[in-house]
Order: sequence, then structure tokens, then C-alpha cells
Amino acid sequence: MSRERLSLYDTTLRDGQQTQGVQFSTAEKQQIAEMLDALGVDYIEGGWPGANPTDSEFFSAAPKTKAILTAFGMTKRSGRSAENDDVLAAVMNAGTSAVCLVGKTHDFHVTAALGIDLAENTANIAQSIAHIVAQGREALFDAEHFFDGYKANPDYALETVKAAYDAGARWVVLCDTNGGALPSEIYEITRAVIDAGIPGDRLGIHTHNDTENAVANSLAAIDAGARQVQGTLNGLGERCGNANLTALIPTLLLKPSYADRFETGVSPEALVELTRTSRMLDEILNRVPLKQAAYVGASAFAHKAGLHASAILKDPTTYEHIDPASVGNRRIIPMSNQAGLSNLRKRLTDAGLEVAADNPALPRILEQIKEREGQGYSYDTAQASFELVARDALGMLPQFFEVKRYKVTVERRKNKYNKMVSLSEAVVVVKIGGSKMLSVSESLDESGNDRGPVNALSTALAKDLGPYQNYIEDMRLVDFKVRITDGGTEAVTRVIIDSEDSKGQRWSTVGVSPNIVDASFEALLDAINWKLIRDGAKG
Amino acid sequence: MSRERLSLYDTTLRDGQQTQGVQFSTAEKQQIAEMLDALGVDYIEGGWPGANPTDSEFFSAAPKTKAILTAFGMTKRSGRSAENDDVLAAVMNAGTSAVCLVGKTHDFHVTAALGIDLAENTANIAQSIAHIVAQGREALFDAEHFFDGYKANPDYALETVKAAYDAGARWVVLCDTNGGALPSEIYEITRAVIDAGIPGDRLGIHTHNDTENAVANSLAAIDAGARQVQGTLNGLGERCGNANLTALIPTLLLKPSYADRFETGVSPEALVELTRTSRMLDEILNRVPLKQAAYVGASAFAHKAGLHASAILKDPTTYEHIDPASVGNRRIIPMSNQAGLSNLRKRLTDAGLEVAADNPALPRILEQIKEREGQGYSYDTAQASFELVARDALGMLPQFFEVKRYKVTVERRKNKYNKMVSLSEAVVVVKIGGSKMLSVSESLDESGNDRGPVNALSTALAKDLGPYQNYIEDMRLVDFKVRITDGGTEAVTRVIIDSEDSKGQRWSTVGVSPNIVDASFEALLDAINWKLIRDGAKG
Repeated sequence: MSRERLSLYDTTLRDGQQTQGVQFSTAEKQQIAEMLDALGVDYIEGGWPGANPTDSEFFSAAPKTKAILTAFGMTKRSGRSAENDDVLAAVMNAGTSAVCLVGKTHDFHVTAALGIDLAENTANIAQSIAHIVAQGREALFDAEHFFDGYKANPDYALETVKAAYDAGARWVVLCDTNGGALPSEIYEITRAVIDAGIPGDRLGIHTHNDTENAVANSLAAIDAGARQVQGTLNGLGERCGNANLTALIPTLLLKPSYADRFETGVSPEALVELTRTSRMLDEILNRVPLKQAAYVGASAFAHKAGLHASAILKDPTTYEHIDPASVGNRRIIPMSNQAGLSNLRKRLTDAGLEVAADNPALPRILEQIKEREGQGYSYDTAQASFELVARDALGMLPQFFEVKRYKVTVERRKNKYNKMVSLSEAVVVVKIGGSKMLSVSESLDESGNDRGPVNALSTALAKDLGPYQNYIEDMRLVDFKVRITDGGTEAVTRVIIDSEDSKGQRWSTVGVSPNIVDASFEALLDAINWKLIRDGAKG
Repeated sequence: MSRERLSLYDTTLRDGQQTQGVQFSTAEKQQIAEMLDALGVDYIEGGWPGANPTDSEFFSAAPKTKAILTAFGMTKRSGRSAENDDVLAAVMNAGTSAVCLVGKTHDFHVTAALGIDLAENTANIAQSIAHIVAQGREALFDAEHFFDGYKANPDYALETVKAAYDAGARWVVLCDTNGGALPSEIYEITRAVIDAGIPGDRLGIHTHNDTENAVANSLAAIDAGARQVQGTLNGLGERCGNANLTALIPTLLLKPSYADRFETGVSPEALVELTRTSRMLDEILNRVPLKQAAYVGASAFAHKAGLHASAILKDPTTYEHIDPASVGNRRIIPMSNQAGLSNLRKRLTDAGLEVAADNPALPRILEQIKEREGQGYSYDTAQASFELVARDALGMLPQFFEVKRYKVTVERRKNKYNKMVSLSEAVVVVKIGGSKMLSVSESLDESGNDRGPVNALSTALAKDLGPYQNYIEDMRLVDFKVRITDGGTEAVTRVIIDSEDSKGQRWSTVGVSPNIVDASFEALLDAINWKLIRDGAKG
């Protein structure tokens, strides 16, 4: 059974950078390029050398990749030769073995935006592609607005892509630049291009998600015969984003209608790293990962409905379309007041607490979770805080220490150099066994910079935990999220803290209060208590 | 030109409630039902009466809607008649004119999950649907796992849906329950059902987004002949969500390939409210709206690429697939270091600042924005803070007052009733003109509850703004978002504050500091300064 090869072209570093709020540093670009290479894409588009300082810098120190590193640019402008176009020269000077140029194929854009005649635009495309080929490089042509252009003037749109093809372009990529085309149109127009003489194994597809059809549009083009797909990790990109490779790749590898017919450069072993890759990108961007993301989202295999949850416990294939492990994701049975007792027991088992089905504490735990959710707490993600609530109800919560009181001061004023500076100071009083300990900390780090009141509190608290000190030394706060939410009748602050230790354990806790310092402190206490329990400290 | 009618069935209140982290109150369900009715959907599925106390409560006090309010449940169980099934009785007792029952159509689920034989399951479906019809209600049958079932055993899957149809179901809804089916499969299997004798105008489609194809799968079923679409607002729903009506509806109304052939209950006037409806739902759920959402996302018409932005300024159709106003959305030219001067001038114009193209301050503003973004600031959303930076560079920033220093204390300890309570206190020293004013506030609200240090600071600051007092009296903080982000080499806290006034003006400001109180205070000061400028206070 010989399968056809599908080529994967990633544009996270170029089109993905057009996402509102996204700006990669050069180091981040290098890191992402390495992630993409490990995943197994065929092409990595690194940016537009000359248009953006970061992009130029990236190409001058690009990582060595198995994937073909590609520079992006545009076809030469009118009134000069390809050799003498300085914008194109900057692209060529990046020295990549492949170069992708965008050019116009929609007659309206040629006359209205460029203000040149149609034949001149076609000549610009042909000469630019020929120039790349003459330099011994691989040429790709991004046919901008191709689908809109084809609908407006099919003859001219076809003329432009044939010009690129005849000039030696390895791939002619049909772009739905404005993202407005629908799957059936993509299918038919791609077929028309093949019928017009460009073979499918020289055709690529580049879609945007403006109608939420970017993935389906890519599949429709493959169905029609195109053999290269362009997209980005996590669907980054201008406006609503590009085709999401994180959703497309598992479909191509795991769904028989594609997997039986095609092969890609992504191995099953690399696919297992997909969820981690997706989360790492969000981490680099400091974005909250989209829970509902297909395949890799934290909710993608979360079974909240009571009926589903109990069926899943019998046989996961009842409500899962693939094995979550194949993409490195995992099943979740979240807590909530829709969840039945079977959800609850599953979640307790995950926390290492085996509880008999008839334990009278179980309905009590459900009740408490519901009550606390009404106050503004959220336990879908804060598994460690959930575990503490459950342990309390089960009589399995050891007492390690008690915080008697604390006081934090934040002051901002001019220092002796007449510069405004701030300083925080915290005093915490803790009782451990019979003894009371009072400790104080200010918020300055090693370099003398103020790290704020929560830092001061956490440092003061971590100073005097006596016999428990060695358990918490390797704890580190890795994320801190704050939301204003509704707790009963009043708005309250919900703080979720993600902590980590040197063993790579990572856990989430929640605190709720109208006072942000209090809410943070509560989440912090939960984080410490969970760590002490998990590491076997004696209460 | 007579167009066929497409029926829209909303399940936000039932399947949408299966979203991880979502739990509607009865009042919220009522509010959402009214929003859906104003939008013009044909059916509103309100929940599962009897399975969930909130759902039962909702039906007992349901709003009057033009849309057909529908109760959801499951087909009767074996070993009792439809009349004597208490779960079904609870559904019927909600008294809705339409009832939708889910039943099994996949042989594996019948034998493995229900443990009954296939003929018995078919009889249960037929008898349940007949029971609804006999009561004079409209019956809908949700064919669970239909596409997987058809792939495994087409004869049996068809037998179950024909049983429902023959028993009088108004709609037989083909459900891709696990979300794993792809558009071409949906198309072919829906065609097969029509070929087997169930007419398309009695067929519905219910998809999930597990491969990011829920919208495309719905369109594929319509292409094949189905005439009812089920989905949710904002794509809420179990796991990766249901088909997103917020994306589907504009496609059905605005794209000629559907709009020319079909009509729905949604008018063009109601469509203009779509963005607001989507944001209101997020507000009810206290979720951050998804910027990249098709049609209604804040980034859906954001043009970041310099080339796109300048073309858009000439003619919006160059890079927009629809007019943003048709769905109540708007165009954004965000600031960022990819943006050129044309972006910047457009954004200044939006802020009421007309600046000549050759003003030497323009490159300086770009430079400053870039530098501050490097420190952790973000101006994509914080338009008011952006405006203050620009005004400063243009020499158009009035000085109203100067904060000389402040001090905040947060204390938590036991009160005289031996209960842990917290209290914050803030002192702010402000210089206005020649005079210095010192004011103090604690953080207790009218009911004696602590509202935290930022509240105390803001109250103290708002106490003594002398001549500016009347300008800020109607200001209100409506949202407060905190992120840990990267400012140069150190992690810093970024606070974004959304403020509102009695005229309905809403504006966003940003503050950055390692100290969360400082960052909040900075954003607060920006919010006040912007309001003073906007309302014409004299500096």
C-alpha cells in the first residue's frame, strides 16, 4: 500500500506573527523553529528578511533544521528588474534554500492596489520566480486572494498561477487571503486549477479561519488534489488566524480517510509530543492555552456530563473519537455540580484517594464543592485545592501549621535620588505545634528590585516553617492568574496559582476574596499544604 | 426566487452547559433564552428537566419566546412503558410544546452500554417518540453516535432513525456525538439517510468540534440536504464544543452560496446584534471573549500587517471578506512594532487626534510604544493608555495632579468574635496646583466588608482630587485583569483595567510593575487622566 506524500508548510514565524498581541523575539523564533523541526514539518517559513529587524536577525543565526527553512517576500515591483529590486534582494540575501513570494492574482488588486496593468503583474510574477530558480533556489509562489480572484476573473487568476508554474515554481500555493471562501468553493476551484494544467503535487493550500472553516478548507483542497498544506501552530495568524496545524496534523495521521491515503513527515512518536508543543508555544507567548482546542485542549477529553462520565469509566471509546495519549493529551473528569458520584470517585482516585462508593463523605464533598463554586471558587483546574477540600471532608487532612495573622505594607515614594520607588514588607505569625513564630520579609530581590506584596508575604511565610522548611525549599510559583468573578452577590477576586517543584511536579490552587492579597495568600497556603501532603510530611 | 427554510436549533442552555467551567444559574438561563429569541433561532433547548435542579427551575418559570422552547431527555428505558418511565415523565412534565429525546443508534452502544438487544432499543425509540406525539407535542429524535454507528452497522443505524421517523418525529437529528467525523463523511452519510427514505426537510445535524470541523460538518450536512442545524452560541459545549452558531449564522446569511438558497429566522437587523450577543454571553460566563473568533472576535477585523493596513485604509474590501458592521463588529488597526506609520495615524484619528503625516513626533511615538512593549506593556487593547503616551509625545498631555506618595496596609487577624478578618488602609498624598492634599481611606464597603488594597487606594485617591472631583464621580471599575508577563529580564505583573462612566463610555488602561499594587495604581491613574482629558477638564 503506497501512500502519497503530503507536504506540511509551517508559517507560525511569519503569518503567525501577525496575530494581534504577538511579537516574537529572535530567541523565541529559534526555539519555535526547533519545536517545529522536532514535530516533523517539511518547511519552516522564518519571516520576511528586510521587513522586520527580528526576522533579519533570525535568518542570520537560524538553527540547523531538517525542515527546509524558507524566507518570505513579495514579487518584484514594476519598473525594475528582479535583480535590482532591493526588497527582493533583502529576501534573497537571507540565503535560504527556498524562497516563497506572494503576488497578486485578483485583477481588482492589481489595478486598484498596485495600479499596474494585468500583463505587467503577470510578468513580475514570472520574472521573480525565474530569478529565484536561476539562483539555484527552490521557489514557492503564494497566490494572494486566489479564490476571490478566481471568482471575479477565472482566466486572469489562472494566468498568474500558470506563469509562476511555468517559471519553475516548485509549489503554487492557493491562498484564501481574506478567509471568506467556503469548503465547497475551495474544492471546486482547486479542481479547476488542476484541470487547467497545474498538477496537484505542485499545488499548495493556505487558508484563514474567518468563517471557522480553515481546517475544513485545507481538507477540501487535499480532497481536490492539492498536496501541500500551509498553517500555523495553535492557529495563530492575522485576524481569526491561519489553518491550525495542531488540529490538521492529528486528523491527517489518525483518521483513516486520510491516514490510509497519505503520509507526512510527522511520525507517531512526534505526534505524542503535540500537546506539549502546543502548550510550549502558549507559554512562550504567555497566553492562556485554549481549553476547547481540538485534540490538544485541556477540555478536549473532559467528560462533564454524568452519563458520559460513567460510560467512559467502562470503555473510553464510547465517548472519545481518538485515544488522548496518541496526541499526548489526557482524559479529565472535572468536578462540577453536573457531575455525579462516579466523576467524583474518579477524581479522588487520580489524587491517590481510594474511597468506597458508599462512603457518606462523598455526597458531602459534592455539596461543599457546589457551595464553594457558588462563592467564586473554581475547581475545574485547581485540582490541588479540590484535593484539600476532599481530604478535609474525609478526615484525611493533616494539620501542619496555623497562620495566626499577617500584615503587609506597600509604600511608594521618592528615594534619596528623587526617584519614585516602591517597597513592600510583610510580617507573618505562624503557630507550629506549641510554638509561635513571627517572621518578617521585605519584597526586594537579590538585585534590590521590589517584587511586590505577594512576594513579600510568601517569602516571610516560607522563612519560618520550622520542621517543614526542607519540604518547601524547591517550590516555585510559575503562574498567577487573577479574575474578577461573582461570589454570591458581590464581585470577588479569584486567584489561581500554579506551582512547581524540582521534581517537575506542577499543581494548581485557588483562593477567593474581595481582597487580592488575601486571595493570593489563600492559594499560596493551599499550594504549600498540598506539597507537604504529597511529599509525606507528618502533621 | 423562493428560498428554502433552514431551521436553527440552539442548545446553549443544554449542551452548552456541558462546557468545562460553565454552570448557568436559572436567572442566567432566562437571560440567555431572551437573547436567543431576539436573535431569531427557531428552537431553544432549555435543558433536561428532572436531571438538574436549575433546569427544572428554568422550565417552571420559562420566559415567553417566539422560538419553540424544547425540553431534552432520553428515550424510555427497557422494562417499562413510555407512560411509566419516571425520567421521561419528568421531561414531559416540563410542559413544553416540543420534546427532544436522545437515543442510541450505534449497535455497540446498545449492547455494551445499555446491555439490551438491538430490536428492543429500536422499540424503545419508536414507543418514546409515539408517546410524545400522542400527547400532542412535537417530537425530535437526537440520533446519538449516528455517524460512528452508520460506519459500524449502516443497516441498524438506519433502522433506528426510520423507527423515530415512522413514529412521527418532526425532526430526526443526526448527531456526531464524539465529534470525530469529517466533512466528506458527514456529506455522504447524510445523503445515504435521505436515499433511505427520510426527507431532508425532516433531517437535522448536530456536530462537535473535536477535529475543528463542527461548522464545516454542519455545512456539509446542509449541502447534502439536511434542513435543521443544531449548535450553541460561541461554540460552547462538551469537550471542544458544539457547532458554533455565532460563526454559522453569518455564513448562512452573508455568503451567496447559502444566502441565495436558504432563509432562516434571523433578520439582517438581528445579525447586527450578533457581536454584542456573543460578548454578553461571555460576560454572563465571566469569560474573556476569544479575540480570534470568526466574525465576532475583537481581532476578526484587526489588520496588523503594515501592507494590509495601508490597503484597508484605501478600500476595506481588499482585506475583509464581509463588512464588519453587518455583524456589529468593527475594524481595528492595532499598534505594534509591525505596524507602520499609517496604522499609527489611523489610531490617533480614532482617538480624536489629527496629526500631520510629517509630524516628527510620529516616529518617536512608535519608538516609545515599542520600548514600553518590551517592558511588558500591551497597547493592543489599552487604547486609553496608548492615547496618553501619544499625547505626551505630542506635547498635548495636560498635567492635572501629581501623586507624591502612597502607602497601603493589608492586615489579616482575628477580630473580637475570634473570626479571621482582613482590613486594608491607604494613604495617598497628591499635589494639585500649589497645594498638597493628604487623604486616607480604608477598604470597607457600605456593608462593612473588606474590598482590598486596590479599592482602598482608589477610594483614597478619588477623595481629594479637588477641582477634578466632579469629573470622576461617575467612574466605575468594570474589569480588572492581571497577567504575569515578561518585562525585559524579569517577570512583571501587567494589570489591565476597564473603566466605565454614566454616559456608557468604556475605556481600557494598562499598568506594569513587579508589584501588583503599583501596576494597578498606574492603570488607575491612566484611567482617571484619560477621563479628565476626554471630559475636557483644564490642566
